[in-house]
Amino acid sequence: MEASHDTRQRIISAAQELIYARSYNEVGVQEICDHANVKKGSFYHFFPSKRDLALAVLDQSQMYMCDEIINKAFHHDIPPLARIERFFNTLYAFHKQSKEISGRVSGCPFGNLGGEMSTQDEDIRSKVDSILKASEKPFEKALTAAIERGDLQAVDTAATAKAIFAYTEGIMLYAKTSNDPELIHELGKRALQLAVPVNKQ
Amino acid sequence: MEASHDTRQRIISAAQELIYARSYNEVGVQEICDHANVKKGSFYHFFPSKRDLALAVLDQSQMYMCDEIINKAFHHDIPPLARIERFFNTLYAFHKQSKEISGRVSGCPFGNLGGEMSTQDEDIRSKVDSILKASEKPFEKALTAAIERGDLQAVDTAATAKAIFAYTEGIMLYAKTSNDPELIHELGKRALQLAVPVNKQ
Repeated sequence: MEASHDTRQRIISAAQELIYARSYNEVGVQEICDHANVKKGSFYHFFPSKRDLALAVLDQSQMYMCDEIINKAFHHDIPPLARIERFFNTLYAFHKQSKEISGRVSGCPFGNLGGEMSTQDEDIRSKVDSILKASEKPFEKALTAAIERGDLQAVDTAATAKAIFAYTEGIMLYAKTSNDPELIHELGKRALQLAVPVNKQ
Repeated sequence: MEASHDTRQRIISAAQELIYARSYNEVGVQEICDHANVKKGSFYHFFPSKRDLALAVLDQSQMYMCDEIINKAFHHDIPPLARIERFFNTLYAFHKQSKEISGRVSGCPFGNLGGEMSTQDEDIRSKVDSILKASEKPFEKALTAAIERGDLQAVDTAATAKAIFAYTEGIMLYAKTSNDPELIHELGKRALQLAVPVNKQ
């Protein structure tokens, strides 16, 4: 069991690394197996198709983002609006360090896979969509907390969180296409301006 | 000459259609040749590599975007800030109609190619980057005209245009991953809130 879990995990980690560095269609099953040091038969034992692997990679990337960015940024040790600011600072620090190591800004793993695959694979599209929507939640909670504390006037917290995270995806794409992590810092500062007023009945 | 130009153009148009509907790495040279009804030898006469074709496709997509969206939206028949609003309405109408035909929101052709290829091909990354930067210009001009008319307080027009177009890319990615053109309408309404104040010396 232990060895089996380890093999599956090695395949996921190899795929995550290779796909994030390049793109989904550019990385083949054989290369993933070579990188993970597993046999191709073993791959298909764990993943009936490359798509199933992509879904597992998305799960792992989401866990990683929660551990390394979301949970650190939205920890309750500072006021709620400062947590949103810290989100962009954490994202910036992550991509600045990644670029120092690889020479490249690789963007958002969810935006990358969604942008490449949404018209081609409904399961991948739907999974990316649900991850992006889940990523709005910590912003929504921080906005609600800020309103409760009187730090922010009443806004539509769900709509504002959606606008902020859509903007975040655009920032990540811009940082990737310009290969410049500084844009995360520069553009992220404007995110809170996207407040959506409460819809009056 | 006429026939030669026509063949080259057929290859570009076939590639543009196939890549936009799916993705760059998912579409092969043979399929593009079949779709354009040209022989593979003829392809390599016009394009030494698939990358050279991608660059030509980006040029053609940029011309198309200027003709069909930018020039229509930013025409001077209405006040400058209304032109920015019309940009999102035009983008919305285009993708709503595309979805009615294909069942899919295919997103931004520049964001798609940039997101997929920026870590893999420096020429494609650089071309997408320059197209995105050029796309900020009509926004910048409209903002400048709005300030001159007294419709908008002084803002850093270049920085604001950059924030708006980065947000636009995020909106397009969101519309693609949720397969919902309504998001372009809903989120686009907030774009002008991204005004960047003039940096005081």
